[in-house]
Amino acid sequence: MTDIEAYMLKLGSQARSASREIAKATTAQKNSALQAIAEAIHCQCDQLLAANQLDLAAGHEKALESALMDRLELTEARIDAMIEGLRQVAALDDPVGAISDLKYRPSGIQVGRMRVPLGVIGIIYESRPNVTCEAASLCLKSGNATILRGGSEAIRSNQAIAECISQGLEAAGLNRHVVQVLDRVDREAVGKLITMPQYVDVIVPRGGKGLIERISNDAKVPVIKHLDGNCHLYIDDKADLEKSISVAVNAKTQRYGTCCTLESLLVASGIAEKVLPPLADQFQQHQVELRGCEKTRSIIDGVGEASEEDWETEYLAPVLSVKIVNDVDEAIDHINKYSSQHTDSIMTEDHSRAQRFLREVDSSSVMINTSTRFADGFEYGLGAEIGISTDKLHARGPVGLEGLTSQKYIVLGDGHIRQ
Amino acid sequence: MTDIEAYMLKLGSQARSASREIAKATTAQKNSALQAIAEAIHCQCDQLLAANQLDLAAGHEKALESALMDRLELTEARIDAMIEGLRQVAALDDPVGAISDLKYRPSGIQVGRMRVPLGVIGIIYESRPNVTCEAASLCLKSGNATILRGGSEAIRSNQAIAECISQGLEAAGLNRHVVQVLDRVDREAVGKLITMPQYVDVIVPRGGKGLIERISNDAKVPVIKHLDGNCHLYIDDKADLEKSISVAVNAKTQRYGTCCTLESLLVASGIAEKVLPPLADQFQQHQVELRGCEKTRSIIDGVGEASEEDWETEYLAPVLSVKIVNDVDEAIDHINKYSSQHTDSIMTEDHSRAQRFLREVDSSSVMINTSTRFADGFEYGLGAEIGISTDKLHARGPVGLEGLTSQKYIVLGDGHIRQ
Repeated sequence: MTDIEAYMLKLGSQARSASREIAKATTAQKNSALQAIAEAIHCQCDQLLAANQLDLAAGHEKALESALMDRLELTEARIDAMIEGLRQVAALDDPVGAISDLKYRPSGIQVGRMRVPLGVIGIIYESRPNVTCEAASLCLKSGNATILRGGSEAIRSNQAIAECISQGLEAAGLNRHVVQVLDRVDREAVGKLITMPQYVDVIVPRGGKGLIERISNDAKVPVIKHLDGNCHLYIDDKADLEKSISVAVNAKTQRYGTCCTLESLLVASGIAEKVLPPLADQFQQHQVELRGCEKTRSIIDGVGEASEEDWETEYLAPVLSVKIVNDVDEAIDHINKYSSQHTDSIMTEDHSRAQRFLREVDSSSVMINTSTRFADGFEYGLGAEIGISTDKLHARGPVGLEGLTSQKYIVLGDGHIRQ
Repeated sequence: MTDIEAYMLKLGSQARSASREIAKATTAQKNSALQAIAEAIHCQCDQLLAANQLDLAAGHEKALESALMDRLELTEARIDAMIEGLRQVAALDDPVGAISDLKYRPSGIQVGRMRVPLGVIGIIYESRPNVTCEAASLCLKSGNATILRGGSEAIRSNQAIAECISQGLEAAGLNRHVVQVLDRVDREAVGKLITMPQYVDVIVPRGGKGLIERISNDAKVPVIKHLDGNCHLYIDDKADLEKSISVAVNAKTQRYGTCCTLESLLVASGIAEKVLPPLADQFQQHQVELRGCEKTRSIIDGVGEASEEDWETEYLAPVLSVKIVNDVDEAIDHINKYSSQHTDSIMTEDHSRAQRFLREVDSSSVMINTSTRFADGFEYGLGAEIGISTDKLHARGPVGLEGLTSQKYIVLGDGHIRQ
């Protein structure tokens, strides 16, 4: 057994036994731990900033990209946001122990379901130290133990945050192994983390497509995947013109880099000549590059040619592909073929087309007359989110506290026996 | 590409496109297909029996075990039960399209969840031809396409049933590829089935532990596992004596071969001397062999010594392991260590101990004062079950129609844009 393997098995075994403790912790205990972690982070703000400075210096030396350096950086404002996030999670309802659907059966037994933690959650993410705190708080509140593996560039910041988390857990009388942050960031450690089902119940990878595909391929543990967001808006010929323009522009331009940003616009041929010219004007003002099908290019000038690849691409940039389709059928077919099953929306005033779109588009969020930018745990009222699942099993769409739990059956009898 | 691989890819691609059709089929269409399948089976009863005779003759030649031969056999009564099963599934509520939790958010959008099919379900099972019909009917009703791979010994029976299913689907105007039964039963076909995530969304293996573990290990598709049932009953010192004896005897002896049969009895030391002697009498009458810990053996005579292995064993036979524990804490620890997380029950009249057991035992069904034999989709009111999941993600416990679906988010707006 290698050194790393032994280290990971030790962490796993500690997490498994801590998970038994946190599963039965009271809501008050978990909330007081969250408050104590917030307090520890508040008091140790200077140490966190100092540790982060070392990470930043090392990143500078390695000539990390500026986007990466930005995500790596902790500022006082970001630390305050972490503290505020902890307090918000403390204020959320505790999902654990909630009983639903308890009913009497003809045999006389009562059958219902109780919400319970998943157990041990492994989270693999990139070099954003605030994720350490956010992920830990959600897992803690939902009664799970967690093993966190952040990007190597943030290792000193993460260790400093981990120390605050441990202090908070202990202050609340909880096992410090409820949250463990890897201090070994080798690939081998990740490889082990995703292949020890005896200790880890689910893996949540956060990061680029490459990372997530690699993990899904190698894992022997279920993975809650968050893949890319190739999101569509279909403007039906029965759509309201003004609403359509406003929603399309918002969905594309409100923020370019999020997974619920619009990447592909479909327009019914019956409305294309009316809606595309004013839309093209607006996109030009926002300096959004359009890439269109042949028909699109015959209606508006200065549009590049969209290739097959464009229909599949999540640009995360001021670029939008545009295609003219015959009707809602062609729109649904196109979306079910090219969408990444993240978020897709229709603009229409026609009730039955809206209903068909809602039912037949096979994506984790399907919208009517709404900007795709709303696909987010906070906007949906989950209070927080650990990611947006594009999987079909277990959790689809934004994953909040409930997505970190499952339901077991409970049966209440009074000496009932089966005939 | 091998021949089998090409065959499986063709089936997969047909299933994927059929899944789009069945997902949007109306409840009436699905029910009429189920009725038409029942009708086809009724009319072709003789052909089914003839095909089954060929399977039985081949099984006889291969000298299959009698238990296997029994499961393989179709009789008129079994065919009638298949027909009755189809009609029962037709009578169940359609889970697809049900909308729940639709609420207004402060932004003005309405957010809710809609129940949707999983897509394509692969089912791998042993040589019980009736499972072909049962599994197909549940997948069909829940709006999924399915690829069925039954045991090689039942191939002729399964093909005859498959023909009736195809006829029924076509009579209802549905795509015959909604249900496909493999006519190649090579291992390579299974290997391909569980590694084509582009065409298969989930695998449900039904069968022995070996089969399920092999599939879970090799699959690149999520698996809804149904592992073994090492079920426990804990008799607390505050339990009612009569109820405890009646429930323990029922849980062990009502049927020996089911996954919710009691396999291990835990008794609080405070009640052991009162409850064990009458229990031992009853078990003797039922010819159940007891294997006990040292303390058990000092209280009742003629009890063999339980080894560490006994605590882990699902006997599926008239054998029961018995252990005396100090209290509910030790019982919960023992169960969380040795149970297969299937079904575990406590006998107690003490409210807070019952509540602790309910919350802290980490199994898919947790019971109070009830025989473990109730852990079953019909008893729970699911109408039918495709298996009992001992997994933690997605579905836990008996899996009915709802377990073959998931929920997507739906968002209704009126031109809402994100600020």
